[in-house]
Amino acid sequence: MQRIPTSEVGSHVGERVRVMGWLHSLRQLGGINFLVIRDGWGIVQAVAETEAELIPLQQGEFGVESVLAVEGLVVSEAQAPGGIELHGLQIEVITPVTEVPPVALNKRKISANITTLLDHAPVTYRHLARRAILRLAAGAMEGFRSTLTARGFTEIQTPKIVAAATESGANVFKLDYFGRPAYLAQSPQFYKQIMVGVFERVFEVGPVFRAEPHDTTRHINEYVSLDVEFGFIENHFTVMALLRDVIAGILATLGEHYTDELTILGVQMPTVPAQIPQIHFAEAQDLILQRYGTDVRGEPDLSPQDERWLGEWARQEFGSDFLFVTGYPMGKRPFYTHPDPKQPEYSNSFDLIFRGAELVTGGQRLHLYTDYLAALEKANLPLEPFEYYLEAFRYGMPPEGGFAIGLERLLMQLTGAPNIRLTTLFPRDLSRLTP
Amino acid sequence: MQRIPTSEVGSHVGERVRVMGWLHSLRQLGGINFLVIRDGWGIVQAVAETEAELIPLQQGEFGVESVLAVEGLVVSEAQAPGGIELHGLQIEVITPVTEVPPVALNKRKISANITTLLDHAPVTYRHLARRAILRLAAGAMEGFRSTLTARGFTEIQTPKIVAAATESGANVFKLDYFGRPAYLAQSPQFYKQIMVGVFERVFEVGPVFRAEPHDTTRHINEYVSLDVEFGFIENHFTVMALLRDVIAGILATLGEHYTDELTILGVQMPTVPAQIPQIHFAEAQDLILQRYGTDVRGEPDLSPQDERWLGEWARQEFGSDFLFVTGYPMGKRPFYTHPDPKQPEYSNSFDLIFRGAELVTGGQRLHLYTDYLAALEKANLPLEPFEYYLEAFRYGMPPEGGFAIGLERLLMQLTGAPNIRLTTLFPRDLSRLTP
Repeated sequence: MQRIPTSEVGSHVGERVRVMGWLHSLRQLGGINFLVIRDGWGIVQAVAETEAELIPLQQGEFGVESVLAVEGLVVSEAQAPGGIELHGLQIEVITPVTEVPPVALNKRKISANITTLLDHAPVTYRHLARRAILRLAAGAMEGFRSTLTARGFTEIQTPKIVAAATESGANVFKLDYFGRPAYLAQSPQFYKQIMVGVFERVFEVGPVFRAEPHDTTRHINEYVSLDVEFGFIENHFTVMALLRDVIAGILATLGEHYTDELTILGVQMPTVPAQIPQIHFAEAQDLILQRYGTDVRGEPDLSPQDERWLGEWARQEFGSDFLFVTGYPMGKRPFYTHPDPKQPEYSNSFDLIFRGAELVTGGQRLHLYTDYLAALEKANLPLEPFEYYLEAFRYGMPPEGGFAIGLERLLMQLTGAPNIRLTTLFPRDLSRLTP
Repeated sequence: MQRIPTSEVGSHVGERVRVMGWLHSLRQLGGINFLVIRDGWGIVQAVAETEAELIPLQQGEFGVESVLAVEGLVVSEAQAPGGIELHGLQIEVITPVTEVPPVALNKRKISANITTLLDHAPVTYRHLARRAILRLAAGAMEGFRSTLTARGFTEIQTPKIVAAATESGANVFKLDYFGRPAYLAQSPQFYKQIMVGVFERVFEVGPVFRAEPHDTTRHINEYVSLDVEFGFIENHFTVMALLRDVIAGILATLGEHYTDELTILGVQMPTVPAQIPQIHFAEAQDLILQRYGTDVRGEPDLSPQDERWLGEWARQEFGSDFLFVTGYPMGKRPFYTHPDPKQPEYSNSFDLIFRGAELVTGGQRLHLYTDYLAALEKANLPLEPFEYYLEAFRYGMPPEGGFAIGLERLLMQLTGAPNIRLTTLFPRDLSRLTP
């Protein structure tokens, strides 16, 4: 008999079907044995009313996580998960397991400290809540790509081994490249800008590497960046309009195709306003003084506390989980940042704050070759390591800009995960290189 | 007036439209000036019948690659590219360019040696033939993903910084990870196998790093790997059946949505037989002896020449560009390879040969914990660095297998590119780290 996924069992009531998967749980209740089978798509309950049905398991004392094929009659049962269960079982053991997993995988909440969860990730990702986050990651990438391809963007894959640090000399991983020093890319920034000269509109989904020596719940040293860059923009507001649509596209994909995962994680889905509210950096600092009594004026950046306050204000004032802060001071932004033509100490850049924390950074970039030469000189940076990059501007670049979304940040804020390490596959941090 | 892409100009005959892009070429013919404008989607010809129309360009002596906005009336003209051109021009210079690009970008064939092409990649990718290959790369990724998501596969992103070399100690890039040694992943092999225990069916599109000190037209040291792994297979033939569908899916996506690029590159699209012909490794060696008079029996692997011969045979015998060679000897395959139960010196593995060169390697893997312990012992490998990986098998794994397609290899064989460096974005080789 052909195997069907557990997610399709419900449409076969009254028929015998064959499912395959892991023995998620096995418990006895009043002489009846309840098995739950987990496959790649969900779970289904199977009820053994006779001991004979269980013999294949009992002979080897095989336990949870054994891989089984189970045939049975599909019966409606309001008490069962999904309203159906299998009766009259025929069980076949495909891969027997006798050892007990290091963490119980079949409780609604997984009860282990984060070190145990991460040390045993190859097994703990099997927990429905753990794997649901990884499924949302897949859904977010899918929504990101589909929104952009529908708008004429081309996907690129840029090199991760680079000759020089991308944006600054600090916080890069150094490697030995056939006897020469090389570095891991901190971002695809320069390459995606170059490719605006080729395709106008590009995006990339790929790993970025940051050797930041921070040990917090919000830092990992390798993460997935959702990068966008495009030309023929008016200014950073064009970029913000696209970002709004990309975020809405990601959330729509999750809302349509990942409902089980959102339910398992208890996610409160945000709505994305047609116009995300926005506030200028200087006004945001004024607002913080007026509303919260703390004078942060003159600070060159917003602190995490500032972002929480602004997020709270956006929530109360506009009912929005999202807030754009625009016009960050030029001093703290990288050399390729485009200044505000009317107030050149501020930039045509923005951050998107989601639920009180920065989720996205973006803005308009310089696009004139002469402006780059001046900016590098002003930043006291040598020309030589940037020559290949500047070539793209030397031979004609339209006004352009872009942004980068941290995939794990998005998942953390969306699901309320207490630690970013729980939102990514096999995290890398100051002390963790395995699994 | 709203800008439209050049690809849409043809549906506005008789209307005035606005296009934006790069000045691809400018030539005078009998007192008339022909401009070609290139944007992210194609090119369009614009005809200036009066000198006045050209004044915005002439005032600054602006040349090719200047970024322009051009408004004009859409007129049918059989001689023009795409059968249309713009008349009555209004030209606006957005970004002026006066310097001549290092390579002519507007000839049908780009005439420069490969070093120049790669050194000036930020500009040479603008050539229609160069960018067409990169567009096919995007299309191949799109076709790969859509074929797999339609079959219930989940996308994963696995770490690229790892604690130990993935499959062997050789040919890995070493880096400094906060004072500790670490390595760049040679493949996502172990992680994708682990994730079969979570999602059953997974795929990844991502960079892999090989520190192979080979300087050939077929080697690069960082490339894009299209990885697949899935469970509940019968044996390697299940894997081959999926691979056939994935290749067909990629080619279908290219054939449907990338016709311009295929035309520019003059690609001969292969057809994928419903059943790709297959031959066992031992029979392949016999065939080479009979047909080509070279005795390669006893060799543990096929040479590039063997693959060319077999490709030729498949072409002549079955009219197929594709051929599966199955059952490679266990000796040359990695420790996780599943042996052929009937002839344990051969493996349940395969290569897919495409137009006479290996394109894909795959097979069935071991899935029993005890088999892994025995295989590591036999290979004289220590247990400790593999413990996290083995945990996935210790707690129940179904029979599983998978494969990896080298994206650049695929593009090279498909387009007939003379050097793999021309099929990837910013290649990395023994001597090249920039751009």
